[in-house]
Amino acid sequence: MAVNLAPPDGASLHRVAGVVLGVAMAAIRKAGRKDLLVIRLDAGATVAGVFTRNRFCAAPVLLARQHLKNGVRALVVNTGNANAGTGADGVKRAMQVCRALAARLGCKPTQVLPFSTGVIMEPLPAERIIAGLPQALSGSADWLSAAEAIMTTDTVPKAASRKVRLSSGEATVSGIAKGAGMIRPDMATMLGFVATDAGVGRAQLNAMLKRAAQRSFNCITVDGDTSTNDAFMLIASGAGPMASAARDVQALEEAVTDVARCLAQAIVRDAEGATKFVTVTVERGRSTEECRRIAYAISHSPLVKTAFFASDPNLGRILAAIGYAGVPLDSAKIDLWIDEIPVAKRGARNPAYREEQGVAAMKKPEFTVRAVVNRGKARATLWTCDLSFDYVKINAEYRT
Amino acid sequence: MAVNLAPPDGASLHRVAGVVLGVAMAAIRKAGRKDLLVIRLDAGATVAGVFTRNRFCAAPVLLARQHLKNGVRALVVNTGNANAGTGADGVKRAMQVCRALAARLGCKPTQVLPFSTGVIMEPLPAERIIAGLPQALSGSADWLSAAEAIMTTDTVPKAASRKVRLSSGEATVSGIAKGAGMIRPDMATMLGFVATDAGVGRAQLNAMLKRAAQRSFNCITVDGDTSTNDAFMLIASGAGPMASAARDVQALEEAVTDVARCLAQAIVRDAEGATKFVTVTVERGRSTEECRRIAYAISHSPLVKTAFFASDPNLGRILAAIGYAGVPLDSAKIDLWIDEIPVAKRGARNPAYREEQGVAAMKKPEFTVRAVVNRGKARATLWTCDLSFDYVKINAEYRT
Repeated sequence: MAVNLAPPDGASLHRVAGVVLGVAMAAIRKAGRKDLLVIRLDAGATVAGVFTRNRFCAAPVLLARQHLKNGVRALVVNTGNANAGTGADGVKRAMQVCRALAARLGCKPTQVLPFSTGVIMEPLPAERIIAGLPQALSGSADWLSAAEAIMTTDTVPKAASRKVRLSSGEATVSGIAKGAGMIRPDMATMLGFVATDAGVGRAQLNAMLKRAAQRSFNCITVDGDTSTNDAFMLIASGAGPMASAARDVQALEEAVTDVARCLAQAIVRDAEGATKFVTVTVERGRSTEECRRIAYAISHSPLVKTAFFASDPNLGRILAAIGYAGVPLDSAKIDLWIDEIPVAKRGARNPAYREEQGVAAMKKPEFTVRAVVNRGKARATLWTCDLSFDYVKINAEYRT
Repeated sequence: MAVNLAPPDGASLHRVAGVVLGVAMAAIRKAGRKDLLVIRLDAGATVAGVFTRNRFCAAPVLLARQHLKNGVRALVVNTGNANAGTGADGVKRAMQVCRALAARLGCKPTQVLPFSTGVIMEPLPAERIIAGLPQALSGSADWLSAAEAIMTTDTVPKAASRKVRLSSGEATVSGIAKGAGMIRPDMATMLGFVATDAGVGRAQLNAMLKRAAQRSFNCITVDGDTSTNDAFMLIASGAGPMASAARDVQALEEAVTDVARCLAQAIVRDAEGATKFVTVTVERGRSTEECRRIAYAISHSPLVKTAFFASDPNLGRILAAIGYAGVPLDSAKIDLWIDEIPVAKRGARNPAYREEQGVAAMKKPEFTVRAVVNRGKARATLWTCDLSFDYVKINAEYRT
């Protein structure tokens, strides 16, 4: 069902020096599938993270945020249970996992960051996770295997990798993500992990992460539902070349953003029930913020999304969504494009436009909706998908 | 498909003195169905209106807003075509209809308020509407017939009526509405018309209308899509008793609000694909505004709405929606109820709660989700519905 998304080729996913991956089948929710990932870091690695702004943030998010200030030595990620809406008991169980892993690695429990994804409001089976740790620590897994170990309703594992040349040598950037529903990242999405072997200072890594998130995970939406467990982590192991010159930091940031964007788009391509991958661009607004607001109104409208599903160039629904986005625009100045077809001009149907053109564009699995609001110089782009029968089916049957 | 909504009994819908209804089959979009309504008013009637805040408001909304300041003598409502996204040509065509009706009634075109609903971005067939006027003016229709004449994807006509005792005699309040999709009224919903024979001053009528809208049409949402054509009109013909004493105005306002709320709830009951009518109440917030914001987050979440459809007491999805509503609440203080069942306490599952209880409550066609956020004294209630296969089917097939 995923839109133009094949599983990544394992050979294209580069190992990152200073970062060791391990996976296990811990039978957390179902037996016989990978559901536990441990990412071990050499001492001296720098880690930056952004987390959901959902007020109901999950227990592992609370702990990961706290532990982030320490010298992080490991990240432990389980699927099958989100440990969200579980109160103080949830924090206690997540801490048990940190403690068990720290004992095996010879570090402090506060040097371990926990992450969880899966069913909300059920007690975390910490004992099963702890029992799975030896298997996860016994060998070294690749990024594809790591991506598989964090999937929930995802149908395709999501991983991406880049090489980037810095002045002191070539650095690697590799990452994984998961997510298919409850996707409207506010800071980041559940879950993205990107690692580089480059050495980067903490402040620079934090700034890089925030900008990369803003240009990747924070530009996607499936259903407008911001998850309780969103987290996007950026790891710089320092085992490879240093990125300290401004030019190197810039080059590294481009590679990190590229990997993050590739992962973010993969989430939309694999969104629950998606049959279309739609790029929504709003141009010539007064601010990026108002362009994003309009783009979100289009991307969240169930009427627009069902029209996407039906390959129906329903201009009225798109313009109505632009109109209620809360931006004081002049409707008589709006131009609208579907791919390269000018479908509406100055707020009304373009007389030269024939509906067959719009239908043909929207029958493709990927197309762009571009609104030009003609009131400034800012722009913003989001990536979203359609709303299909299968979205309802999946979410009426699956217990988040 | 409508949830606990039968067509109103014609005998329960009282005529309003000073208000004459007329309907016609004008073949605006399809032949053989009522699609034109004319509401004639005696001289001296007072009319108040609230309109969509969608920036893409339709041509008839622009004109009705302008003409409202005059002594209104008629309202003309067509279905089948919304005359929205039609630019200057749309205004011209709507004005042609006003002019033709004014000529027949012997009043000024600016004393006629036009309303349209139906397909967006297609030219209004003004000539067909004008050709239908003689039929609409030839007899006197009842409120049920008027309700039928403004339906689009509605499956049930929506009308309600009340008698209210004022100090100088009994007044009547009757009204109609239409709407089933593109429903998230910002000022009012497309379309509601309520008339009373009571005499009410303009300022009082305006205030009454705004408060009634706030407690009725502005408390419903189907899909979060604010229409381009929303309008809620309140007519006081003055042919009946005067409402000038504060007590009378208050009594009349209660009756108007009651009728408006009944109509607003009927729209949700008849919402596209709806199988559940859900009351969402948020209590003990700091302000009504923040309570509404949380209630809208719950009501718009596709994940919550599909769980409603599945009769799945998915507490995590509801709590996640509360968490991302943008209100800085403390998740550890939230209590959640489904009908009379305390399902979550202090942000976590109530240990005494058994899931069968939640399933049983949600299998009913009507239930209440009540969130108590424990940070103040304000509260708000919305009415909404589920998201079903049929919502997708209807909107993938119907051209708004």
